[in-house]
Amino acid sequence: MSSVDTQLEELKSEIMAELPSDISVSDVTYEGPELVVYTRDPKRFAKNGDLVRDLAGKLRKRITIRPDPEELASPARAQDQIHDVIPDEAGVTDLDFHHDTGEVVIEAEKPGIVIGRGGETLREITQQVGWTPEVVRTPPIESSTVSNVRNFLKQERDERRDILERVGRQIHREELSDDEWVRISTLGCCREVGRASFVLSTPETRILIDCGDKPGSDDVPYLQAPEALGSGASSVDAVVLTHAHLDHSALLPLLFKYGYDGPIYTTEPTRDLMGLLQLDYLDVAAKEGRTPPYDSSMVRETIKHTIPLEYGDVTDIAPDVKLTFHNAGHILGSAVTHFHIGDGLYNVAFSGDIHYEDTRLFNGAVNDFPRVETLVLESTYGGRDDYQTDQEDSERELIEVINETYDRDGKVVIPAFAVGRSQEIMLVLEEAMRTGEIPQMPVHLDGMIWEATAIHTTYPEYLRDNLRDRIFHDDENPFLAEEFNHIDAGEEERQAVSDGEPCIVLSTSGMITGGPIMSWLQHIGTDPDSRLVFVGYQAQGTLGRRIQDGWDEIPINGDQLGRSETLTLEMDVTTVSGFSGHADRQGLENFVKTMNPRPEKILCVHGDEQSVQDLSSGLYHDYNLRTFAPKNLETFRFL
Amino acid sequence: MSSVDTQLEELKSEIMAELPSDISVSDVTYEGPELVVYTRDPKRFAKNGDLVRDLAGKLRKRITIRPDPEELASPARAQDQIHDVIPDEAGVTDLDFHHDTGEVVIEAEKPGIVIGRGGETLREITQQVGWTPEVVRTPPIESSTVSNVRNFLKQERDERRDILERVGRQIHREELSDDEWVRISTLGCCREVGRASFVLSTPETRILIDCGDKPGSDDVPYLQAPEALGSGASSVDAVVLTHAHLDHSALLPLLFKYGYDGPIYTTEPTRDLMGLLQLDYLDVAAKEGRTPPYDSSMVRETIKHTIPLEYGDVTDIAPDVKLTFHNAGHILGSAVTHFHIGDGLYNVAFSGDIHYEDTRLFNGAVNDFPRVETLVLESTYGGRDDYQTDQEDSERELIEVINETYDRDGKVVIPAFAVGRSQEIMLVLEEAMRTGEIPQMPVHLDGMIWEATAIHTTYPEYLRDNLRDRIFHDDENPFLAEEFNHIDAGEEERQAVSDGEPCIVLSTSGMITGGPIMSWLQHIGTDPDSRLVFVGYQAQGTLGRRIQDGWDEIPINGDQLGRSETLTLEMDVTTVSGFSGHADRQGLENFVKTMNPRPEKILCVHGDEQSVQDLSSGLYHDYNLRTFAPKNLETFRFL
Ligand SMILES: [Zn+2]
Ligand SMILES: [Zn+2]
Ligand SMILES: [Zn+2]
Ligand SMILES: [Zn+2]
Ligand SMILES: [Zn+2]
Repeated sequence: MSSVDTQLEELKSEIMAELPSDISVSDVTYEGPELVVYTRDPKRFAKNGDLVRDLAGKLRKRITIRPDPEELASPARAQDQIHDVIPDEAGVTDLDFHHDTGEVVIEAEKPGIVIGRGGETLREITQQVGWTPEVVRTPPIESSTVSNVRNFLKQERDERRDILERVGRQIHREELSDDEWVRISTLGCCREVGRASFVLSTPETRILIDCGDKPGSDDVPYLQAPEALGSGASSVDAVVLTHAHLDHSALLPLLFKYGYDGPIYTTEPTRDLMGLLQLDYLDVAAKEGRTPPYDSSMVRETIKHTIPLEYGDVTDIAPDVKLTFHNAGHILGSAVTHFHIGDGLYNVAFSGDIHYEDTRLFNGAVNDFPRVETLVLESTYGGRDDYQTDQEDSERELIEVINETYDRDGKVVIPAFAVGRSQEIMLVLEEAMRTGEIPQMPVHLDGMIWEATAIHTTYPEYLRDNLRDRIFHDDENPFLAEEFNHIDAGEEERQAVSDGEPCIVLSTSGMITGGPIMSWLQHIGTDPDSRLVFVGYQAQGTLGRRIQDGWDEIPINGDQLGRSETLTLEMDVTTVSGFSGHADRQGLENFVKTMNPRPEKILCVHGDEQSVQDLSSGLYHDYNLRTFAPKNLETFRFL
Repeated sequence: MSSVDTQLEELKSEIMAELPSDISVSDVTYEGPELVVYTRDPKRFAKNGDLVRDLAGKLRKRITIRPDPEELASPARAQDQIHDVIPDEAGVTDLDFHHDTGEVVIEAEKPGIVIGRGGETLREITQQVGWTPEVVRTPPIESSTVSNVRNFLKQERDERRDILERVGRQIHREELSDDEWVRISTLGCCREVGRASFVLSTPETRILIDCGDKPGSDDVPYLQAPEALGSGASSVDAVVLTHAHLDHSALLPLLFKYGYDGPIYTTEPTRDLMGLLQLDYLDVAAKEGRTPPYDSSMVRETIKHTIPLEYGDVTDIAPDVKLTFHNAGHILGSAVTHFHIGDGLYNVAFSGDIHYEDTRLFNGAVNDFPRVETLVLESTYGGRDDYQTDQEDSERELIEVINETYDRDGKVVIPAFAVGRSQEIMLVLEEAMRTGEIPQMPVHLDGMIWEATAIHTTYPEYLRDNLRDRIFHDDENPFLAEEFNHIDAGEEERQAVSDGEPCIVLSTSGMITGGPIMSWLQHIGTDPDSRLVFVGYQAQGTLGRRIQDGWDEIPINGDQLGRSETLTLEMDVTTVSGFSGHADRQGLENFVKTMNPRPEKILCVHGDEQSVQDLSSGLYHDYNLRTFAPKNLETFRFL
């Protein structure tokens, strides 16, 4: 009998000893980080609301109760009973019964009402039908990404359960080593922005954190280094993803091509956004005639192996490692990841990308941990002079620019990234129109912006608290405001908009490197009354940067043969800075300064050479911490 | 055709173009770092002394000429001819013909005479018989280690040639990577003394430097780390050994057990001493009832895979790495190892263990390199206060102690390490008796000391210049002085010596942790007129240290059943410090200070926590170098 089996036998005895004698336990297994308890008495279990919580506290494990199949009401009957129990205003849109696990997935517009105060409605359901309810939100805006992911996971349920069982046994395997050390190896994004990737290792466990690409370059993380996948992809126990941006997520599917078959831990919105962005990454590659390093089947593998965690969940991901995600304030689902190693031995946090102040979309990044000895900190704006305009001032400037353009009957075209900045600008525009600071006019959303917005509204728990509350009430959901129009009829619609009244266009790509923004420039670019407004960083080498720098000759793909025409830009060009997803130098310092206790060591990464050096020496001098500006391919040992 | 085959084809054409038309080239192959040229005209080759040298310079390769077998005189006839050519005073003791390579190994007491001025006698031999002569020294003192190694290598000639051919092709393989970096990973001996082991890696190549044990501990180097052998022993291209001490060499045979099948580069005396010490390591383990991690067949594998290099030879050991050994002054054959990476890209030197000042045995360590950007420096005596007595003063003290003991009719017993310290003390005693500073009396050598001394006299080129010259003349070889007696008749002889006149005993083990020194204490320990003199470091936890600290109850194994008796030590105990194989703090500083140009970075290793920290901060402050005190399991990237 393996050590995991012995462990499960012991847990079963312990659980049986704890439970009242009229509740049976037929089996106990691991599924991912959860302990699953099978019982022939799901209804009695549900009756006593504290049983599961008490058990979880006693065993220090996350516990799921599953009914034995014979205890379940038939789906037909259960369906009626469930509809009777759940109040109508919950807006149940789908019920999905899974006989293998005894779970019923309830999709509802208002999940809170399905759950009930302290989970009482859920317990009531189980008492009546035996099934274990699981609740998901009906997206307020229909999202093909969310529904594709959900359908795919439904269809792959069996294999997914196998994966979870295997992962569960891996997590709870016996510890083998007497040694005690903690190491971080850098595989990318050191003294550069892009290809984020790190290995966190102990004598027991190896964890890969992020696996991104480098925009504007073919450089990839050093995955083939011996300390990475050199000794085989299966030598990695777990992968953790901080957020969906491609410089952190683009090459995750490659791991499965290399033979990785373990879990990916991330938040649920990051999983969906990641899928969206990775598929777009393949699309763009195909359109540009490049051979992408993997195909869409690997994106599906990635999603299938993802174990979503919520902010604040303390989760065993290896015998000696507990993982907790915290809000990073950067984009939807972005997480500061905290690793607790051993039993109080050592703590490491990776900031991922962070925004320290609250924005309209998100609360500021969390920096409140019981302990962190080593912090790996992004340094995008870590340079000596990297102080950003206050967003309030930026918003005022944007409003002014819009009013000016409107007054002369022009249109405002804003190139924007689909994820994050677009939604922030949408919130600014919605408020400005609602309060009359700018006139009511259509805001057209083109490219992936609409889809990304839909994903945002599916996961309001991940948004700033007051915004979340507004989304819970349809009539206040700012993203549903009538001025927003999804461009979904292609060139014809763009032509009509261009020929029409003053309006605002938000379109990808954010740095004018392709995408529908090219069409908008063709349609509106020659109108001297209209205005192109940059609200995000334009990287060196992009068309956006060249336009910002004063170029007005824009190459436009004239036909399918690749012959390109040139368009002379006659619209005004304006830059409104201050809308950033990254903490500026002050924000980074504040993040560190207000940590309590402060970390002993900080590794400054994810910034160009000057930024990491400036931040590293700044933090060293001002806060007397041991700071480092690692190179790629180095290994730091702690302990 | 592989890239190596193409390369060899091209080399063959180039060589044929360079050579006079009457000299044929039948084949060209690599054997280890050498380029072997087969010819049907070995005699014509030999006639023109400059041909090979010119060719080597032009191709920038080490070149060996081999005759085609049909051009060779029969061994019977060749033997006579060779004896005719070589002057009698060369003292030829053996001729060994190898038909497969056309080599004849000539063992002689005076190799220099066999070689002749500028190699003229060797060329004369080839011109006469066609065979390629290779010369080795007849050990002036018979050494079973040397003769065992030579016989073993003779017997394994065929397999060895296969190994060399394989290694040669590896070395000259095509470079695959465009990347440029150099890394050092620490596997042991960081903030500790013992288990020396490092990995030097580039995008092309991974080299393991040293692989030792840790005396007084079971700790071994982190060989299983992914950056070491984690991805398989075959991921290592080459192993380099700095010197034979077990804290650098003990676990090399383990590599072959793990599947390593590549070359070990070291000096010839290190190869022999290493074999001696590794076999003794197995012996000691067996006697103490421990299971050693490998058996003697693995020691033979190690010797079979060894490619000996001489000090100063610049040798290709990988497509992008050249290795050069330099005298380290520490023990026989010990080497500072210099790696030149890429074409002028980067240079790294590992000091191994060094002694900076000249001693009686060795010239001081070489620190004169064209360039070294990073130096990995031993720090055994790197502590703030680690200044040693001048050896001159120590010698005077030792002589005084011996005279005192002699005057009261006592015997002097010196526990000593077989390799290095014993020979140094022998030289002190020989001179003191020759010059009359102490009376003529027998010096008995017990344990492996005699054998180690024999190995020293086999390789006089590795000894201090004036000592080397003396050994070339039998009548002046200090190790052959009449006072030295090899204890080779066991207990009976020890009893007779103990019952006899005043004398000196040098015996292993150096820290009284076992070995014949135990017998000597039994025989002489109770004589209050005799004296125990420590001349080397006594580690914490050893019996030697306890005696030094004042203990006089010595456990003696009384019988074969393991019952132990106790002996009360009544002899005087004296410590004479200052005989060390390691540079003291001043020596380490001088080694760095006189380097020109100085390295940019220094990694301080091979010292306890305090020593490496002291040396690291001392060198940083005094010479403004970037210094580090690495931990085990870290990786530093340069470039
Ligand atoms: Zn990001
Ligand atoms: Zn990023
Ligand atoms: Zn799979
Ligand atoms: Zn040594
Ligand atoms: Zn050593």
